[in-house]
Amino acid sequence: MSHQKTIDASANELLEVAKKEGIETVWDRYEAMKPHCGFGELGVCCRLCWKGPCRIDPFGNGPQRGVCGADAHTIVARNLIRMMAAGAAAHSEHGRHIALCLLEVADDHAPAYSIKDKDKLRRIAERLHLAPEGKDIKQIAREVATATLDDFSRQQASIPCNWAKETMTEERVDRLVQLGVMPHNIDAVVTQIMGRTHVGCDADPVNLLLGGIKGALADYTGMYMATELSDALFGTPQPVISSANLGVLKEDAVNIALHGHNPLLSEVVCDVAIGMNEEAKKAGAKEGINIVGICCTGNEVMMRHNIPLATNYLSQELALVTGAVDALVVDVQCIMPSVAKISECYHTEVITTMAENKIPGATHIQFQEKTALEDARKTVELAIEAFKKRGSSPVHIPNHKQTAIAGFSAEALIGALSKLNAEDPLKPIIDNIVDGSIQGIALFVGCGNPRATQDNNFMTIAKELARNNVMILATGCASGAFAKNGLMTQEATEAYAGDGLKGVLTAVGQAAGLEGPLPLVLHMGSCVDTTRAANVAVAIADKLGVDLDKLPLVASAPEAMSEKAVAIGTWSVALGLPTHIGITPQITGSSEVVKFLTETAKEALGGYFIVETDPVKAADKLFDVIKERRQGLGI
Amino acid sequence: MSHQKTIDASANELLEVAKKEGIETVWDRYEAMKPHCGFGELGVCCRLCWKGPCRIDPFGNGPQRGVCGADAHTIVARNLIRMMAAGAAAHSEHGRHIALCLLEVADDHAPAYSIKDKDKLRRIAERLHLAPEGKDIKQIAREVATATLDDFSRQQASIPCNWAKETMTEERVDRLVQLGVMPHNIDAVVTQIMGRTHVGCDADPVNLLLGGIKGALADYTGMYMATELSDALFGTPQPVISSANLGVLKEDAVNIALHGHNPLLSEVVCDVAIGMNEEAKKAGAKEGINIVGICCTGNEVMMRHNIPLATNYLSQELALVTGAVDALVVDVQCIMPSVAKISECYHTEVITTMAENKIPGATHIQFQEKTALEDARKTVELAIEAFKKRGSSPVHIPNHKQTAIAGFSAEALIGALSKLNAEDPLKPIIDNIVDGSIQGIALFVGCGNPRATQDNNFMTIAKELARNNVMILATGCASGAFAKNGLMTQEATEAYAGDGLKGVLTAVGQAAGLEGPLPLVLHMGSCVDTTRAANVAVAIADKLGVDLDKLPLVASAPEAMSEKAVAIGTWSVALGLPTHIGITPQITGSSEVVKFLTETAKEALGGYFIVETDPVKAADKLFDVIKERRQGLGI
Repeated sequence: MSHQKTIDASANELLEVAKKEGIETVWDRYEAMKPHCGFGELGVCCRLCWKGPCRIDPFGNGPQRGVCGADAHTIVARNLIRMMAAGAAAHSEHGRHIALCLLEVADDHAPAYSIKDKDKLRRIAERLHLAPEGKDIKQIAREVATATLDDFSRQQASIPCNWAKETMTEERVDRLVQLGVMPHNIDAVVTQIMGRTHVGCDADPVNLLLGGIKGALADYTGMYMATELSDALFGTPQPVISSANLGVLKEDAVNIALHGHNPLLSEVVCDVAIGMNEEAKKAGAKEGINIVGICCTGNEVMMRHNIPLATNYLSQELALVTGAVDALVVDVQCIMPSVAKISECYHTEVITTMAENKIPGATHIQFQEKTALEDARKTVELAIEAFKKRGSSPVHIPNHKQTAIAGFSAEALIGALSKLNAEDPLKPIIDNIVDGSIQGIALFVGCGNPRATQDNNFMTIAKELARNNVMILATGCASGAFAKNGLMTQEATEAYAGDGLKGVLTAVGQAAGLEGPLPLVLHMGSCVDTTRAANVAVAIADKLGVDLDKLPLVASAPEAMSEKAVAIGTWSVALGLPTHIGITPQITGSSEVVKFLTETAKEALGGYFIVETDPVKAADKLFDVIKERRQGLGI
Repeated sequence: MSHQKTIDASANELLEVAKKEGIETVWDRYEAMKPHCGFGELGVCCRLCWKGPCRIDPFGNGPQRGVCGADAHTIVARNLIRMMAAGAAAHSEHGRHIALCLLEVADDHAPAYSIKDKDKLRRIAERLHLAPEGKDIKQIAREVATATLDDFSRQQASIPCNWAKETMTEERVDRLVQLGVMPHNIDAVVTQIMGRTHVGCDADPVNLLLGGIKGALADYTGMYMATELSDALFGTPQPVISSANLGVLKEDAVNIALHGHNPLLSEVVCDVAIGMNEEAKKAGAKEGINIVGICCTGNEVMMRHNIPLATNYLSQELALVTGAVDALVVDVQCIMPSVAKISECYHTEVITTMAENKIPGATHIQFQEKTALEDARKTVELAIEAFKKRGSSPVHIPNHKQTAIAGFSAEALIGALSKLNAEDPLKPIIDNIVDGSIQGIALFVGCGNPRATQDNNFMTIAKELARNNVMILATGCASGAFAKNGLMTQEATEAYAGDGLKGVLTAVGQAAGLEGPLPLVLHMGSCVDTTRAANVAVAIADKLGVDLDKLPLVASAPEAMSEKAVAIGTWSVALGLPTHIGITPQITGSSEVVKFLTETAKEALGGYFIVETDPVKAADKLFDVIKERRQGLGI
């Protein structure tokens, strides 16, 4: 491999084990795939109809148009916005699922669930103008669920989605409406993208990209509801002191790894497992049941149940290579199909749970809200059975784990700040931004990708920015990277924060009773929770009376991989944020698409993409942007 | 080129002109693209995330799994069902557009439109159980539009789409519900497909294909409503004697070619143009305005306004090469982006009209229902202006055109049959099928594709089947092929129909006052009108009390190209029809996907795919299937 695979100590250790045992991982497959298809990498491969496949010759010697006549710009733009549609689809299916569950709870059809944070539900109802005062909580749940489902069913194109309109600055809403990119219905926008990219439809790259931006904002809408309604159902995260990395597995426990994104099943597994601890012990597991998380389901249960996080996306297979995972319970998204194949070498039971997400070779337990307790119990029983089969087979649990302080929902963050100023909790942040103690805020999001050394871009950029007094937020597999590698600790703040930032984090941490600073990186949740950061940013913007595109805020997806990441990155741009990608996006075959996303977008939206694969240079560029924004504000 | 480009005489003539004038056409680009990417052709190329692009080595030497671990079966299935989602999206965007227009008409907000076939609207309302008796027609329109839009907004997954449930046999509805493939909401199903094909989601090829079939049935739903509501708004087609092929252009007229699929604008252009004839004459066009159609907008206006059809998909560029087209007015789908580039060599004005379908280099007139008359007038004005620019530039209008009897909506067909038996119009057809005078019915659908000689597969298979007394129906660019090449004539019936079929077509034709037989091929409309054939088939099935998978019915898309065609072919299979494709589908990299679609589907659904690129062999296979089905019925 031309670059190091990972900086994660556990992953490095287990890669050796995998090699010895002849187990193929994502890194091996990545190497085997080289050289990647250059047409695909440039985005100039088109497979939208059976006249092709077509590809544009980037050197100008071969075809400059596909068989239908589409040029590189059309092809690249179509491919890209279908990615945005898929990202929006994935996130919003999650959001819809939670909304439908909330409706079931309101109607007493989902006995495993309740409204754990009633205040949050009331606040949501207020935000959606549903006048919750004096209403029964189930009535409020019904109205909130219905208003949420309206965002999937509204047919009047001129009425924006509730969850988009009520969560942005007014100025931003106006701007997006003006541009014609405000979504009115998530599903309809996904359909519109798929329709307009059909052969012989939209050929105008800018028009296509605007359609894609609408799709990305539909993604935002679906994500926002998913997070907020999950908080209402499962509780709004508050800081927890947890731990991360594969050392959280226990040899003498029934290890259940929860993997995926949707907390509907994992929440119930956490609840049910407590009562089944004795069963596990009877089966010989001295330490009972040990639940750990992987990827974003891991982030969800870490935030709400203080479940340790085993690992993030790229090293999910290595969890199985420990030989210590008895059941890998997966729901949706970012589950490598290879886990089923790898599990054949072990006693591990891979359990799929969602009807639209099956894996050949895995055991399927169909999860349903109305039978959730029973479904969860079945998965735990399978895990205990698998543990018995493990017997005395050797396990390789790396001796690496880190403390990880997680759970910084917007409410938790503002709660911590309110200890400094109860009247006006955002004031300390704003004052410190104005006086330069905090230079700006950077949000890290997104995946892992073997094209970059795992976790390295996250760690390098974050440390560099922190040194320059930039406050760091993280979600998704970015959270995983920081948690595993020790940046969600108070020690990291001491070690890496510039003096200004350290002062602020210490003041807030002390006031919040942490007997020390806040961790260097604030864990805001799973990737779907990226809207938590938007929530805080919009609150700051509203307080200052300026839109997001004026604030010293940046986003970075330095190891991006998935269509969801493409969608998130794009709505980040659409909200006005300079947004860094550390993986070369597969669009460089079109100068027009590149120009729009990296330049024109700045005029149209305030936000724009910055592509930089070198993490040190990326940190410099992001800090330059922050300085430019500060200059713009005259601070 | 390894095979002849086209059998269309006009196209052959104009290809020479294009060559001489150095104008690149779809055939040139197809040749330049060779060799096509073999991975893409097999369906084993995956570009769903930025860890790739990945491809599976079909020979087993290179990678057998993508970087995420997905194997060929997963990759092929995911790619294929995204095509189905895109097809469903394209068709249903069209359907929704018509439904929204109907709602505008009901609310008096669309002055250019009215309900031209009130009886049809009432029949639709009855079919949807809306109890139209005694209701005002606008109230009925409102209720029908609302029930239609419900098929885009319903969130209860257990309630089937109205337009699916009420248009199939009961047995079929039960079977599809049982299989879990009945759509409840078109948009939601498109979103579901996009979500489940996101990286790390559904990896089970059969589960994916079932999801795709649900998408294809969403396509059916969207198409069905598009056709039926268009009939209510614009009139239900009745037989017209028209003409087809590029000889329908006129040197001394302002030639306006209407191209695309959605009749909302083209209907109004037809209405408006009549009043602007004098303007055209004043501009020097002795013959005034000459409207012609291309592709499926062409089929729409041919059926309802007796507008001649200039050509079908593959030769659309050649219409411009005549130098005689003053304006090419396009709406959505199957418009080669190359037309704008080619128009630069001529005086031709290419006019795009839909917000989500723009082409760089074209003039955009934003069409809106409420300003439709004005929008239509603008397009005609631009055409007249362009005509003036044409001046005395030479034109090459081929001297080829054919009579084409078109307009066989289900109602028109049953109307014709009712002249034989007013009480029981289907009886003559059924009796003739039972006694073997008609061996079966074949429906031809779909595109043109330079992978096959244009129109040749259509012509060869249809003649062969007709000789064997198989009744032929056609929609879309199949209709175009038959119309241009003379199979929609009474002479063709005389020349090519077997004696049994000839007898029936003659009896019906005579009774219907045609003074001769029905044409050999019955033109049922544009591709979105393929559900007209389903309508007739279901009526026959209902009358016989058997499901479609027992009847001697087959479908064929012998020159398929688009994602819409993939979706149509799949719902045809899902309805129980053996469905032929004459282009190798890009799925052959997965034995499991191939097996499911060509074998397993037969057990699960009754219908299945037959792949055969040789048209003579294809005709044999289709006729064998018809004989097998007859045997199954004991006739």
